[in-house]
Amino acid sequence: MAIKMYDLAGAEENRRFSPYCWRIKLSLKHKGLDFDTIPWRLTEKPVIAPYNSERVPVIVDNGRGVADSWTIANYLEDTYGDRLALFGSKSERALARFYNQWTDVTLHGAIGPIVVADILPHLDTRDRDYFRTSREARLGTTLETLSARRESYLSALHQVLEPLRQTLAAQPYLAGDTPRYPDFIVFGAFQWARSISNVRLVQPSDPIESWRQRLLDAFGGFARRAPGYW
Amino acid sequence: MAIKMYDLAGAEENRRFSPYCWRIKLSLKHKGLDFDTIPWRLTEKPVIAPYNSERVPVIVDNGRGVADSWTIANYLEDTYGDRLALFGSKSERALARFYNQWTDVTLHGAIGPIVVADILPHLDTRDRDYFRTSREARLGTTLETLSARRESYLSALHQVLEPLRQTLAAQPYLAGDTPRYPDFIVFGAFQWARSISNVRLVQPSDPIESWRQRLLDAFGGFARRAPGYW
Repeated sequence: MAIKMYDLAGAEENRRFSPYCWRIKLSLKHKGLDFDTIPWRLTEKPVIAPYNSERVPVIVDNGRGVADSWTIANYLEDTYGDRLALFGSKSERALARFYNQWTDVTLHGAIGPIVVADILPHLDTRDRDYFRTSREARLGTTLETLSARRESYLSALHQVLEPLRQTLAAQPYLAGDTPRYPDFIVFGAFQWARSISNVRLVQPSDPIESWRQRLLDAFGGFARRAPGYW
Repeated sequence: MAIKMYDLAGAEENRRFSPYCWRIKLSLKHKGLDFDTIPWRLTEKPVIAPYNSERVPVIVDNGRGVADSWTIANYLEDTYGDRLALFGSKSERALARFYNQWTDVTLHGAIGPIVVADILPHLDTRDRDYFRTSREARLGTTLETLSARRESYLSALHQVLEPLRQTLAAQPYLAGDTPRYPDFIVFGAFQWARSISNVRLVQPSDPIESWRQRLLDAFGGFARRAPGYW
């Protein structure tokens, strides 16, 4: 039976913009596991409450619910160890954690102010008030103010991306010759931005962009087929 | 025959403050290889010119010179593959590269303005003019101006360290239960600061500090015995 996955959706049902959900969709593809996504909106917390989560991704595999992207990635690796590895070894799994935290804190923190105002018009109308109120409280300013400062946020992002740029100038994927979970973690951040904002975060000549294009092409163009701007 | 390593020294011969040299000294200890360090000053470029390098670390192993910390770490892993692993697998080696670039660019970039003025009085007198001129050009301001802004740089560093903090709150080392090269890369940055500045970069309650203490204790207290402030 295919795995079910609750996946954050916008007003358009096929606009899926959660970076955490993207990590898991690419991981499921990487392991060659069948799955169906269920579109989920920010205000539909009761739907996933049975799985002890207020956020997506949540997967349901053979009746068992698993929440939180890091927990799900570990569950998939442990449960489907005969499939292509997401981590490969115990120490590789440990090394992946810093990629996870760096992406959650530093990379998302740098991308957020650039794209957050563009999320609003893509949201289901039921989600818009909740989104504006919660995000403006978290960011400490209005969405419009953030948009006005976009150029300076883009410049700060360019600096944040420099270690990633240098790494991907030296090798095709973060995990080497082929992608593994750390690649999917970082790629999720770009897929989030791509799905809701037409602001290009990386230029065509950037090694990060070449890597992103390779992952857009992966799994028969799975990530590229998703609605997005660039 | 013991490996020779050119190691950046201050006015006091045993004050060794290069973060790149610390990466390699801990790697040599990790592999249980005998080595002797040769104190080297910034203005002694002719001494290492035969090894096609203007910077340390440079090691000489059985008459063969190898320069650049990343290159040396790879050389040690490939040459002494029967010893304890610095990387462990091809993909772990690839994953280590982002730690290397993140430390070089982001972490050193955040620590530098905090400690750079404290380096000057520790330098060999021959090195001081060169150091002030080259660093002020690179940082675009005087060493004294940087010191005056120290509080704001400390606050920025605290943010930069957050992904590291979250990672080390979840596991004892970046590589998991035991340290590997990515731990030595990041630790080198703290060893640099410890050796030349009395400004504590992390507080005792910080998981990063617990990890740092474990590495100061490693190899019979090798890194702790080096002159340092905290």
